[in-house]
Amino acid sequence: MDVFSLRTFCVITGASKGFGASIAVRFAARFPKDSVLLLLARSIDGLARTKSLIEAESPHIKVFTIGVDLAKADSSHLDRIISDTLSDLSSTSSTFEQATIVHNAATLGDVSKLMSEQCVDEDLHEYWALNLTSFILLNHVFLKHFPKQLFRQRVVVGISSICALQPFKSWSLYCAGKAARDMLLRTMALEDSSVQVLTYAPGPIDTDMQYEARSYTADDELRNMFADMKETKKLLHCDQSVDKLISVLQKNTFDSGAHIDYYDI
Amino acid sequence: MDVFSLRTFCVITGASKGFGASIAVRFAARFPKDSVLLLLARSIDGLARTKSLIEAESPHIKVFTIGVDLAKADSSHLDRIISDTLSDLSSTSSTFEQATIVHNAATLGDVSKLMSEQCVDEDLHEYWALNLTSFILLNHVFLKHFPKQLFRQRVVVGISSICALQPFKSWSLYCAGKAARDMLLRTMALEDSSVQVLTYAPGPIDTDMQYEARSYTADDELRNMFADMKETKKLLHCDQSVDKLISVLQKNTFDSGAHIDYYDI
Repeated sequence: MDVFSLRTFCVITGASKGFGASIAVRFAARFPKDSVLLLLARSIDGLARTKSLIEAESPHIKVFTIGVDLAKADSSHLDRIISDTLSDLSSTSSTFEQATIVHNAATLGDVSKLMSEQCVDEDLHEYWALNLTSFILLNHVFLKHFPKQLFRQRVVVGISSICALQPFKSWSLYCAGKAARDMLLRTMALEDSSVQVLTYAPGPIDTDMQYEARSYTADDELRNMFADMKETKKLLHCDQSVDKLISVLQKNTFDSGAHIDYYDI
Repeated sequence: MDVFSLRTFCVITGASKGFGASIAVRFAARFPKDSVLLLLARSIDGLARTKSLIEAESPHIKVFTIGVDLAKADSSHLDRIISDTLSDLSSTSSTFEQATIVHNAATLGDVSKLMSEQCVDEDLHEYWALNLTSFILLNHVFLKHFPKQLFRQRVVVGISSICALQPFKSWSLYCAGKAARDMLLRTMALEDSSVQVLTYAPGPIDTDMQYEARSYTADDELRNMFADMKETKKLLHCDQSVDKLISVLQKNTFDSGAHIDYYDI
């Protein structure tokens, strides 16, 4: 069923800028009246900007924003974020037909170091805390607050990367994190047919992460390739890639757990 | 070059029992005189058992054992483990022709929970600490103490699983951890041609982890399958699987970064 045909409670992480902000704005324009977006990110200012873009274009959507550092939030904190939003709505979750979450927040890791040079305990712990632990905990809390009995459809989208499938020099943490996230969602898709699960690789989009990539990647060839893509305007605009994600979710004919790349479509 | 033809300093994690102990005993029997095994695990008693098996069968090998909880060891602790062993040897690392590490230590995670039920912050942090962070840090420390200039060959083996490639119901953490570890080693293989890298999936071996699998796996079908494999004696003996790993390392014709399964050979 077309994801954008149903009155939805939709959580989006990393929604303060870049790809997450684009998802929020463009999803909002397509969800029906009385849908709600709950936008999470560290930057409260960034979230406020995303919210005002949505309110200008899509006044039929209610937007909540909560500043949170997912690397540091524990499960009770994440639980409160969703339950407090539902209380603020003065409604129960049952007034929605659909619950959707887009796990977009992620970090690149220290790409100035090769795998064998990764040696900072705290950096590694924080990398998994943000990219894996908070992903799992937020997913848990989300599915708990939006149980299958109450919804026509539940959709979980993980923003992934070609790096989930293929190693890139200097990007060991990012590749490993994306491979692990894809696998977590593939497992969930296998375990629970009541959730429609997608991992979407957005292609080379022009974001702050691409700036990090062309500035700090240790491997010269890869760093130069990213710089060249920027210079020759080969990077995708976020909206271009979000629109392909939207078309996949509209058709909604993918097998749950599938990994779909921008270039597959 | 045949891994077992060179005088070697070989680190093996999780060597107190099961597959790791079998690797230690059978590798020791094949390494030339004056090779050294450094065996790590939490259980000092288990390590002592492995050591005495090696000393009985392979008196030409010097064995060091160090009790360490890899989930809690920081990088300076791991560094000391290797530098102290080298000091104890009253030698420098340059007296060896080869340095090898077998990353065998791993945990299954709480398989009584489906992915969407994983909700214990501390369990998740500890899972990545043991299965990813310590793996990366120990690998770093190992390659630092055994730089390429001083060795004819350096070999890194990650004990992997079919779960690195394919999701299994109730095994989300294990699958994700193995997928991430494989990707870390694939990235390293791409980055550094001076290291020969293998990920080896040992098949369904009869270990304590299999006991956990058939006792606690949430998914009935999978749990019963494991119980049936035990009952009908279809599980592999550790030594059987280690011998295939040995044959792969003896031939040493695999592409660095390859994932090789017991059933591929």
